[in-house]
Amino acid sequence: MTVSFIHDAPAQRVVFGAGRIARISDEAARLAVTRALVIATPGSGARLGARVAGLLGGRAAGVHAQAVIHVPRAVADAGLAAAQAARADGLVAAGGGSAIGLAKIIARDTALPVIALPTTYSGSEATPIWGTSEGERKTTGRDTKVLPRTIIYDPELTYALPAAVTAASAMNAIAHCVEGLWAPERTPVTVAYATEAMRRFGAHLPRAVANGGDAEARAECLVAAWLAGAVLTGGTGLHHKLAHVLGGYGLPHAQTHAIVLPHVARFNLAAAPDARARLADALGAADPAEALAQMVKGFPIPQRLRDVGFSEDKIDDAVTQVVALAITEPRAISADDAREILQAAL
Amino acid sequence: MTVSFIHDAPAQRVVFGAGRIARISDEAARLAVTRALVIATPGSGARLGARVAGLLGGRAAGVHAQAVIHVPRAVADAGLAAAQAARADGLVAAGGGSAIGLAKIIARDTALPVIALPTTYSGSEATPIWGTSEGERKTTGRDTKVLPRTIIYDPELTYALPAAVTAASAMNAIAHCVEGLWAPERTPVTVAYATEAMRRFGAHLPRAVANGGDAEARAECLVAAWLAGAVLTGGTGLHHKLAHVLGGYGLPHAQTHAIVLPHVARFNLAAAPDARARLADALGAADPAEALAQMVKGFPIPQRLRDVGFSEDKIDDAVTQVVALAITEPRAISADDAREILQAAL
Repeated sequence: MTVSFIHDAPAQRVVFGAGRIARISDEAARLAVTRALVIATPGSGARLGARVAGLLGGRAAGVHAQAVIHVPRAVADAGLAAAQAARADGLVAAGGGSAIGLAKIIARDTALPVIALPTTYSGSEATPIWGTSEGERKTTGRDTKVLPRTIIYDPELTYALPAAVTAASAMNAIAHCVEGLWAPERTPVTVAYATEAMRRFGAHLPRAVANGGDAEARAECLVAAWLAGAVLTGGTGLHHKLAHVLGGYGLPHAQTHAIVLPHVARFNLAAAPDARARLADALGAADPAEALAQMVKGFPIPQRLRDVGFSEDKIDDAVTQVVALAITEPRAISADDAREILQAAL
Repeated sequence: MTVSFIHDAPAQRVVFGAGRIARISDEAARLAVTRALVIATPGSGARLGARVAGLLGGRAAGVHAQAVIHVPRAVADAGLAAAQAARADGLVAAGGGSAIGLAKIIARDTALPVIALPTTYSGSEATPIWGTSEGERKTTGRDTKVLPRTIIYDPELTYALPAAVTAASAMNAIAHCVEGLWAPERTPVTVAYATEAMRRFGAHLPRAVANGGDAEARAECLVAAWLAGAVLTGGTGLHHKLAHVLGGYGLPHAQTHAIVLPHVARFNLAAAPDARARLADALGAADPAEALAQMVKGFPIPQRLRDVGFSEDKIDDAVTQVVALAITEPRAISADDAREILQAAL
């Protein structure tokens, strides 16, 4: 087998530890940020935003708590206007994928440095990928400018994540890792991250779901989510493409990932011995697809596609869409294969 | 256990693949380098340097084939003078640790961008660590300026490495990985790299030693050497400190590492269950210290400290030095422990 790849790693600083939110002002100073606009979602996100602004003290230029999932065009425009009105020279994204996603769009258009304070397992903070939406249509792109220069991971910010959200968002991250082990664009670094993240999720996610205040499990899951985010730069395959097709029927993103993953893993791992061996080691299980299925079964999340809005009459259409993608790595998928996976997940 | 760390990753681009040396001019252009001074060692290194200058064409400002191991002061000064005389706006280090080490020192003092074309498993290209020597005294430091901006790994450049050099330099890299799994400064990223490098070395190093022209094994070992180099930023422990003490008696660096490692691993892994589990998975062996010992036994390199210039009468002095280092992680080492390790390695 020929080994050839390009791995283009941007600079990024990660400060990790319980209570590290207290370092936000020092980290802003390190980037010479004197007027940081804090980006958050409304509601509890706004409370976190206000707390962060307080910690930033004289380095805060305001709180813009209007982030919305998928960054609709109007939300992006309002964020950009807020940054300009505040004469911000930096952005602090405090929250999950929505807050970080909005900060990225503002950074794409202004080149302002971003500091991320993630509170979920979205992993968005570890990628140079931005996304916006206009109605149903999503647009994504890559730009080094949007990658947060500094990430402060404070596991305490994740203790209050409900069990169902913890499980679903972690399964989404796990899907990135599993797929990262067979994606054609993988590099030795993304493979190393995926393997490492799986080892940590496998040992600690069930504990974090069972007890959200388990400090060690929360810290380990947040480490795993970071590494899983970095895997995303290694491309995607059948699993994400299938999840994208299902998303077209309005199915919820993270939950759909969790339901579909064990079935896709069973299908693809049969043709991906290296991925299979790594997952077996990481999960301590001879049959890693079965281990993933058991993990999902133990979580308080939807277990079947029919539970999240999919139905038998849509299978033909979904199969046609999947087959049209002409996926060949790690193996070609026929209409019968796609039907079998969807039936099993239904 | 508390998880807390800082991981400060600088930007670095890696281009990997057989024949990729041909990309040198494109990669220089990407860094806006128009007058690159090629740094190499004398002899066969000079021939490689000339080849690289030819590939650089109009972007070459000359070849300085005077790199020497440990970068003696006079060699550093001559390199700096050569870069200035050539009005170089970039450096291409073609070779092993000596060529890369000299380019780093020039970059430290001039901030010129470095492109590395490694031909050994030193891993120096993956670290911001520079080193110089004056007589017996070595000085090292860290500076982001010295980290190569771009690495081109062309496994074909390693096919001619003799089996003994292949084995010894890879065992040196393996020592960084093993130690990186218990070093107190480790981060999840350095642990992931160390684990990944061990998996690749374990499967492919014996093949590369047995047949230097095995393209896949050579590529996999070079990937592993890269990752092992990046582990170095995660600090060192008993193994490297003991090797350093032994170096004080004039013992050869890489060979000493290879001899000592299985003995230190046996001692430390007993107190480092996570490192032990990772190595067991990576090497596919229930007793990873024994697997390392067997690996060394199969290689055409010195097997005992007495074979590389150490002798029984120096043990007392070495024990005193090791104990004075007051190493406590992953376990404290007593005079009796140190004596036992040295006796076993003798």
